[in-house]
Amino acid sequence: MEAEEVLGSDKLIKQQVDFGELGTRQVLSGIKKWYRPSQLVGKQFIYVVNLEPRKIMGFESEAMILATDSEKPIILKPSSKVPNGTKVR
Amino acid sequence: MEAEEVLGSDKLIKQQVDFGELGTRQVLSGIKKWYRPSQLVGKQFIYVVNLEPRKIMGFESEAMILATDSEKPIILKPSSKVPNGTKVR
Repeated sequence: MEAEEVLGSDKLIKQQVDFGELGTRQVLSGIKKWYRPSQLVGKQFIYVVNLEPRKIMGFESEAMILATDSEKPIILKPSSKVPNGTKVR
Repeated sequence: MEAEEVLGSDKLIKQQVDFGELGTRQVLSGIKKWYRPSQLVGKQFIYVVNLEPRKIMGFESEAMILATDSEKPIILKPSSKVPNGTKVR
């Protein structure tokens, strides 16, 4: 729904993500070097949501975006649109 | 690399998937109702590879394709092309 660069960090983007029945969660991700916030807004990606929230540079992060383990992390997405919050199996 | 319907099954598609350094693996998936083999060939999707192989209708399946848990399973993919076999983290 929203994404912005974290001021003072060369790594972090802070997103507000609609997880459907789980509600909206804040997600901090170290992808600023490769993605602009505007490339993320309005799209669907894959997240891990069953982890303890953790603080990153003072911000609560309540999920983790999934990406490839390559020099540029390539974010995972569904191959077509699904309802927000749909689970993966 | 290759995909075909399993004869005698209304569910199964059998794929030969290039996992890069891991080699080529055969993957059986219960997605025939929603996908044609031709929609899969030449594309990249996300698989779980660190499971024991299992036999499905007599065929060895050496990985599991990841999809959403919705009535029609929507297969997961990288948001842009990556080398075959790239890990997710």
